Amino acid sequence: MFNSIKESPIYPIVNPQSIAFFGASNNFASMGSNLLSSVRSLGFEGAIYPVHPKEKQVQGYKAYQNVLDLPETPDLAIIVLHTDIVCRAVEECGQKGIKHAIIISAGFKEVGGRGANQEKELLDVAEKYGLRILGPNCLGVINPHHKLNTTWMPYEAPAGFIGMASQSGSFINQTLGRISKLGLGFSTAFSVGNELNTDIVDCMEYLGACPHTKVIALYIEGINRGRAFLEAARAIVPHKPIVALYVGGSEAGRRAGLSHTGAMAGPDNLYDGIFRQSGVIRARSITELFDFCWALGTLPECKGRRVMIQTHSGGPGATAADACGRAGLEVPALSPQTLEKLSELLPHTASANNPVDVTFSRNPLFYYSEIPKALLENKDADILLMYCYTPTESVIRSLESLGASREEAAKQAVIRIDAQSQAIAGLLERRDKPIIGFTYSSSDDRFIQGLVERGVPVFSGPEQAARVMEALVGYSSRRHGIMAGASEN
Amino acid sequence: MFNSIKESPIYPIVNPQSIAFFGASNNFASMGSNLLSSVRSLGFEGAIYPVHPKEKQVQGYKAYQNVLDLPETPDLAIIVLHTDIVCRAVEECGQKGIKHAIIISAGFKEVGGRGANQEKELLDVAEKYGLRILGPNCLGVINPHHKLNTTWMPYEAPAGFIGMASQSGSFINQTLGRISKLGLGFSTAFSVGNELNTDIVDCMEYLGACPHTKVIALYIEGINRGRAFLEAARAIVPHKPIVALYVGGSEAGRRAGLSHTGAMAGPDNLYDGIFRQSGVIRARSITELFDFCWALGTLPECKGRRVMIQTHSGGPGATAADACGRAGLEVPALSPQTLEKLSELLPHTASANNPVDVTFSRNPLFYYSEIPKALLENKDADILLMYCYTPTESVIRSLESLGASREEAAKQAVIRIDAQSQAIAGLLERRDKPIIGFTYSSSDDRFIQGLVERGVPVFSGPEQAARVMEALVGYSSRRHGIMAGASEN
Repeated sequence: MFNSIKESPIYPIVNPQSIAFFGASNNFASMGSNLLSSVRSLGFEGAIYPVHPKEKQVQGYKAYQNVLDLPETPDLAIIVLHTDIVCRAVEECGQKGIKHAIIISAGFKEVGGRGANQEKELLDVAEKYGLRILGPNCLGVINPHHKLNTTWMPYEAPAGFIGMASQSGSFINQTLGRISKLGLGFSTAFSVGNELNTDIVDCMEYLGACPHTKVIALYIEGINRGRAFLEAARAIVPHKPIVALYVGGSEAGRRAGLSHTGAMAGPDNLYDGIFRQSGVIRARSITELFDFCWALGTLPECKGRRVMIQTHSGGPGATAADACGRAGLEVPALSPQTLEKLSELLPHTASANNPVDVTFSRNPLFYYSEIPKALLENKDADILLMYCYTPTESVIRSLESLGASREEAAKQAVIRIDAQSQAIAGLLERRDKPIIGFTYSSSDDRFIQGLVERGVPVFSGPEQAARVMEALVGYSSRRHGIMAGASEN
Repeated sequence: MFNSIKESPIYPIVNPQSIAFFGASNNFASMGSNLLSSVRSLGFEGAIYPVHPKEKQVQGYKAYQNVLDLPETPDLAIIVLHTDIVCRAVEECGQKGIKHAIIISAGFKEVGGRGANQEKELLDVAEKYGLRILGPNCLGVINPHHKLNTTWMPYEAPAGFIGMASQSGSFINQTLGRISKLGLGFSTAFSVGNELNTDIVDCMEYLGACPHTKVIALYIEGINRGRAFLEAARAIVPHKPIVALYVGGSEAGRRAGLSHTGAMAGPDNLYDGIFRQSGVIRARSITELFDFCWALGTLPECKGRRVMIQTHSGGPGATAADACGRAGLEVPALSPQTLEKLSELLPHTASANNPVDVTFSRNPLFYYSEIPKALLENKDADILLMYCYTPTESVIRSLESLGASREEAAKQAVIRIDAQSQAIAGLLERRDKPIIGFTYSSSDDRFIQGLVERGVPVFSGPEQAARVMEALVGYSSRRHGIMAGASEN
């Protein structure tokens, strides 16, 4: 492990000052040209040197017939050539003194036979010149903080706090539309492809040291260096959570992974054991992977499994209690002190059990301030799970019924709804205990959007929220377990 | 069981021609006034008679001091009064000869003590006059086909095919924003509350006979008439699927349900057994409940568990295969005939296993027409699971790179994307085998919206889709099981 990110052997792959680009031309339909477009459109500020046998200029840059002709030795080569000519290009990069490359081209180990042989040749060349290669058969890197994107899709999300290393390129760009709606984005994302000599462990170590990365997401079809993974993860987990999705555990998943990146999968329980020992939290789907990252990267530590549930409708309270119960979380009774506080805040129709079913609040804002505050202060509370439902149209109607014009009611409704989400976000800013929302509304709803924009994670149902709470509790306990183990040694 | 819906003893509750309304006034902030607003805003076309001790007119209707003064005997009474005066109002309804009522008011059995006694009195009065009551402590009924909505929320969804009976009112209206985004709506929805003398079984029987209902959704905290439930369900399942969410199985869920509607829950495995014997498909969350209804109400029968998976990216193929494997679905190898057909359609980089990873199609439209057609014709195919990802911005960019102006490219992109969703919907219209989509995109994406609008269910990830496929297969097998059992008797 290294302490400063600049010591990472792959630092120049993620933060190049200059790039030699193989495979881009003025034919905009080609994949290489597309990739160069992506690099340009995110606003990469370093030097770009297209290498092309015929063109004099490529997309406005001066082109070079051979990499050996470049005026400097660039930090990185990006290669998007036909499989058969990749190896020669890498050889020439080595001759030029280039030490880092991303090979996007596919057709290697993952297709077997001739492709597998070509991958062996590639490894020989890389060793000969001491070249560090990401790929082949990958999409490369997204580092929005450095304005670098080597995938063929535009990076349309904020620069964020999720560091991702993925054995599928799809998951670092075909998920962007969804996560950006949650205000999430990548700090840095890697598509590792066939892992010639840079694997998911290297990327995880980089992300562990990356100051923009608050939480690490891994998509795994198979880990080749189990011991290195375990050691690296245990070094990271005390200060940064790691979440992993592993799909090789079922027979069908194993076969699909094999033909995808040639990864060798192992039995599910083997990986379960590795993750547990490593302190890594396991997700069961891509949705969960990002859900967990959202909560782990946003919320304060969840020190135990005792959940306070707040609702204003019985059904959502019952589904929430049931989801917590099934997930092994506790829904403890409220303390006499809390009950006393609540008695001043709740109407007589309310149920002051846990779940606290507020029904109609005496003062609607209590739901978003005094009541959750009282629940968070309950001595047996580790986390608050809150049902979120304030439909804009209902607020408008109730204001109209009090005499406001439609226009005035609509204006006031927005102000009130935003005040509600602000109040909850304010409670969360105290950073002592986590708050999680769940809803059955559409994610387009103004109240839900307001919460999400203000950093309160809201999930589509309590089952999803319960899984997230399990992850929060799991991270806290694994983290402390590793730290205790380390201090014993 | 009855054959025509008009024989249902609760038909007038769902389809009244005239309503006596207790509890609405000209104070628009009161709950009763709010409810009357809802009834009016959906455009109810029958007569409405507000009953109010003082007002001469309520919301534009002539008001009556006592129900006995009404010029006719209405089909239905809707009661939103303080708990203490409900019983007297019901007594007067009985004297007037009214045979059906919805009691919205709460504060009865669910609060225990005095409330429980008041509920007993209510039952006595109902028996004395032969009154059929929905509630108390409920939201009543939504029947958009009859323009009737007695809940306090506006019904902002299409008139649809999902018939719902729920032991929580929340789930028939706090879910509307979400399901309407999928083009879904209720045929009729019941909030049954404390089930005085109309329970979830009565509602299920009604929905079984309802011609607008293609699939029945149940939210259950506890069933009191187990035998009746089983018999009614077994009579319905051969011609209409039933999906149920039961939350009383965990200790926390049981307690929450008890304080909510006073329902007595039973152990989880007891309900599992009841559902299995009844042919009812069990959902594990509200999200699943509607997911299952969406697919069961839209797709042709799924006769087996053999899934064809089509993707153009390796990662989604691997997660899909893994999700199917874990769900106990089969992902069989392709037949030589199918492989031969595909060889003409796929590029050499493609993987013609199952999952079929198309990578780049020779002709992009093949992905949405010839390739899925070939997979559906594979002899070992029961269902097609298709990865859906066509980001509008990428299509625009690729058209721009071919020389189109931004404006022209944007216009053409929309046409092409809509042609893709139309092509898939066209395959589904043949009604021989079901097609299900999954995506990691945002639901706002034009391609995803296009599919949804055209009746192709698309889910947020393959795990959700796999659960839906299990439900489709499960319904088919339970249905045939019940029919075979019936024919043996």
